[in-house]
Order: sequence, then C-alpha cells, then structure tokens
Amino acid sequence: MKNPLIITIGREYGSGGREIGKALAERLGISFYDKEIITLAAQKSGLAEEFIAGNEQRIRSGMMHNFSATASYHNGFFSHHYLPLSENIFIAQAQVIRDIAAKESAVIVGRCADYILEGRENTINVFIHAPMDARVKRIMHLHNEDEAAAIKEITRSDKERGNHYFRYTDMKWGKAQNYHVCINSALMGIQKTVEMLADLAQIEER
Amino acid sequence: MKNPLIITIGREYGSGGREIGKALAERLGISFYDKEIITLAAQKSGLAEEFIAGNEQRIRSGMMHNFSATASYHNGFFSHHYLPLSENIFIAQAQVIRDIAAKESAVIVGRCADYILEGRENTINVFIHAPMDARVKRIMHLHNEDEAAAIKEITRSDKERGNHYFRYTDMKWGKAQNYHVCINSALMGIQKTVEMLADLAQIEER
Repeated sequence: MKNPLIITIGREYGSGGREIGKALAERLGISFYDKEIITLAAQKSGLAEEFIAGNEQRIRSGMMHNFSATASYHNGFFSHHYLPLSENIFIAQAQVIRDIAAKESAVIVGRCADYILEGRENTINVFIHAPMDARVKRIMHLHNEDEAAAIKEITRSDKERGNHYFRYTDMKWGKAQNYHVCINSALMGIQKTVEMLADLAQIEER
Repeated sequence: MKNPLIITIGREYGSGGREIGKALAERLGISFYDKEIITLAAQKSGLAEEFIAGNEQRIRSGMMHNFSATASYHNGFFSHHYLPLSENIFIAQAQVIRDIAAKESAVIVGRCADYILEGRENTINVFIHAPMDARVKRIMHLHNEDEAAAIKEITRSDKERGNHYFRYTDMKWGKAQNYHVCINSALMGIQKTVEMLADLAQIEER
C-alpha cells in the first residue's frame, strides 16, 4: 500500500499560503495542520503551548543560551536536557509531523515539514510566495492596519522564517530546487492556485 | 486588446526544460524560441552566429576585456562600440526577445527572457529544475555518455547559467520569488508538466 499523501507548504507571510493549504486539504478531503502541530507538540513534550507559540520562530542568538529546564521524559516525549529550549520545540514538532505522515494524508503548512520528511515517498513540497505589493494589500486588509505596519510585519516575518528554516535545515528558504512546486499566488489568485495544486496531487495519486 | 502571451522558461541543464517548452508551445499553438533567438540576434547585430553560439554563456573575467570591433550600426541594429562583445550579444538578444513579445505569443527558453520582459503584462515566468540523479540519467541517455561525463557537463552548465543570469540580471538564478511557477520535472514527468503549464496558461488567457 502507498504511503499517505503529504503536501507540505512553505510560504511567505501574506502570500495566502496558509489559506491555500486549508482550502487544498478541504478539496482533497484530507487533514490540515498548522497551529494544530504546536498544540500536539506541546501536549507531547510538556512544554507550555503559549511558550511554543511565542518562541518557535524567534530564533535569536540570545536564545541559544536559554537552556531548557523541562523534565527529560514527559508524556511519552523525550525532552533533551542541555539543549536550548528552541531545539526541544523543533524536535517535538518534527516528531508530531512524522507521526501524522505515518498515519494519514494531510496538508502541513510551515514547520520545515519538507525537510523533516525529506526522502519520504508520496510527499509534495510546495512553496507559496507573492510580490511585496500583493502581500502588503493582503495584510492591510486582514489585520486592518496601515501600509507601513504591514510592510514592517512582512519584513520581520520573512527574516524570521528564513532564519528559522536555514537554522534547522541548513538550506535556503525559497530556493526553487528545495521544493517540487513554487507558485506566485498573485498570478492566478488563491482559488485557481488551489485547483492547480489539487490537480497535481491527483496526478500524483494515480 | 491583450498583449500576446509570453511564457519564459529558465531551466537547469538536463531537467528537460527545453523539451517542456517546445511541447508546451505546440500544445498552445504558439511559437517556440531557443537557438532561433541566437540566429535572429546574429542577423540583426551582424555578429557571426557561430561566435554567439560559442560565447554567449562563457562569461569569464577575461572576456570583459574582449571589446567588440563590429560596426556601430549594422542591419538596423545598434552595436555599442567600447562594450565587451558579450554585452553586445546580450543587447542583441534582448532586442530580439522584445520584438517577439511585441508581435506574437511564444514560449522563450533561456536568454534571461524573464528579466528582459520584466513588468510586461500577460507574461508567465517558469523555472524547470530536477534532482541531480534524474538529470544525470537524462544526459547520459541523450548524449550517450557515462555518469562522470554527465555530472561534469551538468555542473559546468549550472555554473555558467547561474553566472550568466546573475551577471545580466543581478538576481539569483533559481530563486523561487523571481518566477511565477517553478517545477521539479521529475515529480510528474515531462508530459504531465506540460499539461499543467498548458492549463495554467489557459487560465491566464481567460
């Protein structure tokens, strides 16, 4: 029997990548994971969910010295003593992603899932991006904020996601060769992009 | 009236990008340009076609001092005195690409066409890549050579294409954000990739 189909989605902030992932999962009738992964990871590792949500992408040099003080074994999850807390968060998330991939078809947004599942069959790695002007418009609309605030937020998020990806994978975020398909969501819009990816997933499934 | 549709294709050597471009043009019933551009550029600029074919991507530091001695105006094309010959080749090709885009729908493979047509409406920029093992197999088969020779050829070509693209565009070759769509041709194979791009082009045309 074939592995369950996993579609990983990396995305630029404001590109609609999360929305595309959610709609794609609905269209294909498979599970969708994003923030849910944090919840699962937190439950398994015993790290407070709020802490993970607040810190997982704020990988700053200062945090490297912020060692974890959690118990070494908690709820079936091994938490490494002497590893920075951020490393334990990554390890917990990676385990959750592997568990999902072992049991069901799913769309997984972010969390370096492409890297964590590297070499796995029946996995499609997607990267969604969009030009700055389209992203600014989207964030202004979604968060009801002005242009300057949107630009600041996008710039900060791009930098954090790029750093986070590079730190854990040693690969460049948004390099075409690291993904099966990269799409500018502004070309066709969210809905048509979802359709294209659904067609592609169905071709792969045959 | 809408601009003619132009699909530019950048591609890694051995990824099948040229074959995909040719099949896509046939499928859409539009023109296909690759080596043809060199011919046209040569005719316009008066540079010998063989010279262009041999030198256009061999941008080495030594060539920067290899100034063009061609006439300044030849067959309607302005050839810049005091510019390196490689620069004149690029300028000639760029003019040919702009002329094509002004008059007909086409698929244009390579030649930094994405950059030359930057900002043009009804233009879809595609990048085709494939994992090293798939490219090696393809080149071994196409050129009837052994693995070591294929790897050497691919490595040299990647480096030359990357340098050529960076030199003229100041952008990184194969960076997802520079294209509308990037695809690993090994995911679905050449034929399915052509179909996907044809569907996408037709969505854009509507």
